[in-house]
Amino acid sequence: MKIVAVDPFYLKMPDITTDADGTQDTLAVRVRTDEGIEGWGECDASPLVSLATYCCPMSHGNIINIRQSLIGEVLGGSDDILRLHKKVLRNALDIQQIDHAYSGTDIALWDIVGQKLKRPVYQLLEDQFRFLSDGIGYPKIPYASVLFGDTPETTFQIATRLKIQGFKAAKFGWGPMGKFDEQYDIELVESAREGMGKSAQIMIDAGVVWGSDYKTVYDRAKAFSQFSPTWLEEPLAPEAIEAYGTLSALNPPVPIAAGEGSATFRMAEDLILHGRIDYVQIDVGRVSGITTAARIRQLAEQQEVQYVNHTFKSHLSLAASLHVFATNEDFNLLEYPADGSELSQRLTTEKLEVGSDGQVRLTDQPGIGVKVDLNTVREFLAPVKIEINGTPIFDQSVL
Amino acid sequence: MKIVAVDPFYLKMPDITTDADGTQDTLAVRVRTDEGIEGWGECDASPLVSLATYCCPMSHGNIINIRQSLIGEVLGGSDDILRLHKKVLRNALDIQQIDHAYSGTDIALWDIVGQKLKRPVYQLLEDQFRFLSDGIGYPKIPYASVLFGDTPETTFQIATRLKIQGFKAAKFGWGPMGKFDEQYDIELVESAREGMGKSAQIMIDAGVVWGSDYKTVYDRAKAFSQFSPTWLEEPLAPEAIEAYGTLSALNPPVPIAAGEGSATFRMAEDLILHGRIDYVQIDVGRVSGITTAARIRQLAEQQEVQYVNHTFKSHLSLAASLHVFATNEDFNLLEYPADGSELSQRLTTEKLEVGSDGQVRLTDQPGIGVKVDLNTVREFLAPVKIEINGTPIFDQSVL
Repeated sequence: MKIVAVDPFYLKMPDITTDADGTQDTLAVRVRTDEGIEGWGECDASPLVSLATYCCPMSHGNIINIRQSLIGEVLGGSDDILRLHKKVLRNALDIQQIDHAYSGTDIALWDIVGQKLKRPVYQLLEDQFRFLSDGIGYPKIPYASVLFGDTPETTFQIATRLKIQGFKAAKFGWGPMGKFDEQYDIELVESAREGMGKSAQIMIDAGVVWGSDYKTVYDRAKAFSQFSPTWLEEPLAPEAIEAYGTLSALNPPVPIAAGEGSATFRMAEDLILHGRIDYVQIDVGRVSGITTAARIRQLAEQQEVQYVNHTFKSHLSLAASLHVFATNEDFNLLEYPADGSELSQRLTTEKLEVGSDGQVRLTDQPGIGVKVDLNTVREFLAPVKIEINGTPIFDQSVL
Repeated sequence: MKIVAVDPFYLKMPDITTDADGTQDTLAVRVRTDEGIEGWGECDASPLVSLATYCCPMSHGNIINIRQSLIGEVLGGSDDILRLHKKVLRNALDIQQIDHAYSGTDIALWDIVGQKLKRPVYQLLEDQFRFLSDGIGYPKIPYASVLFGDTPETTFQIATRLKIQGFKAAKFGWGPMGKFDEQYDIELVESAREGMGKSAQIMIDAGVVWGSDYKTVYDRAKAFSQFSPTWLEEPLAPEAIEAYGTLSALNPPVPIAAGEGSATFRMAEDLILHGRIDYVQIDVGRVSGITTAARIRQLAEQQEVQYVNHTFKSHLSLAASLHVFATNEDFNLLEYPADGSELSQRLTTEKLEVGSDGQVRLTDQPGIGVKVDLNTVREFLAPVKIEINGTPIFDQSVL
């Protein structure tokens, strides 16, 4: 089987706001082979900047675009996916965007190989990475991922709604958290807890608001601990690894989570080894796909850190995320986008529904197991055309 | 003074090869103000992918392009440059390419403020960063930066030519190094030493060839030490920080240099604190400009690591690089592109020439102190046009 086409599609809602809502647009990637099998993936990244990484002219041996590295390549099994991952990243050593941009393609390649071999991706990963698990795809507890309301009152209403929807876990993030004073922050967390009820899990996402100020984070962790959050997420800037390490040495009474900004294996490794975080949150749409995410899962297992997905896109991304850690029974939480644009809700023809036991599980369908709705792609497509020196180097291929 | 225009220009040679020669194309950035002062900078990065970062549509509050963050902003002094640096990077938190792309703009902003205040950039940096130096701009020993020849014989010829040209130091890199066997590697280094002569400094750039194999690197360092290289550069992959740390703990008999791939402060900090390298090599065209490079210089001073520039572009980049560490007398080496395309040779109207004492020094001209030749820009310009949904979002502005 050979790769014959690699096509990125920029999809967007008609109106985009500054809200911290990652579902307002997306970059979907389709890979086609000469045997007629095609796979899809999705990037959580700037669509245009990522798309440029598929077609940018060569600058020298370390700046070669994704298409040029892949078209014509042999794709037979998961060994080929790892070989191509290495080739693409090596050819693009000096393209900073490469990890964000390649994520969608790597996911699509796993989708294709799974279809070809008639096996779900999590089983292929099990064989390839030898995770020392029993190979069973375990169900996960979905946690709704929502923004804080602007006030404690609206946060309470949001939490109550999630409880009524049946969520046993929910993460509240960004918005007013850290923007006013400690008392306001505490009231926000208290409202989330009261709305969700005593038995639910709640998580707090501070949205990098305290920069490198680990002392304030420690104080907030102490203040929030009375509401028993499962974790406090991204209290510090992504770069503040030494501050994360110092915070960890203080033994804050709430576990610390971070990692969604990881674009490379090293960024996650750095957070785990030197930031000493408790939960590592990996976005397969940013970290150059399933291949690197699986390596980070291995590291998390070795270092006794909890692996959890970061997902704020469609159920294509959600399913791709879940394959990475489905076979580890202890990694039992799944970020589950509860709100989201029409685009993200309709990008796939089916969803990973919450089961009657309140949990989410993969099917044993081959590949990623979730199909893209081409009508949605057509409806939300923002066709891109790029010319250099009057010559088209990208002209949106039709579906 | 307000920023009124931020324009990236994609410049390229007619033919681009896979050679490890970063001067075959470039992205130059011009920033204009309402007082008529304009500044220029240069990125060492994929021109098209970086250009997209200037005009990509907003995706949400963490994906906002460079132009949108800057146009209309106040620019009066170096405090403003630091404020804008923070703003741009925060607005582009989820654009991986931001550091590469913003580098040229940050350099241009220092150029403008220097012109406005009639002071060279190194003096502005001295005031802003309080480096604890005496404020004098010291001369540096330029080292020619060239590729190994394909054989020991051609390497000897290259080294001999550099010696005749008057270089007292030269770095040889990439090409066959590490591609055959140990004996061949040794002969390459031996030829470089013989061509340059006993009293010259030679550096070896292994071009990330040994991945994470620190044992081979240690063996090579032992074998190369008889030729007294000043350093062995990038023997390991940029991500292999733990392997760098393990290598360092073995005390290799040749100092280790790395860092050109650093796109962020943390990447350099990680190499310094956990990779325990001896020389940190920073490219102002990749690390979001002079602002971050100056912070890395500070860290290098604190950690007693040697700071040195990485430059494989025009003398605009070279001058920008030199301003960062001119006032530290001990940081006395300067990577000095000896070969380079016609584009890079002619991008500036003047060069940082090697003085009669064999050293290179900045002038006290305001700003970066090197002017862009607009005729060269016109001659090598590859105009870019980007349309989304039929609407132009970038259409190369005329000079």
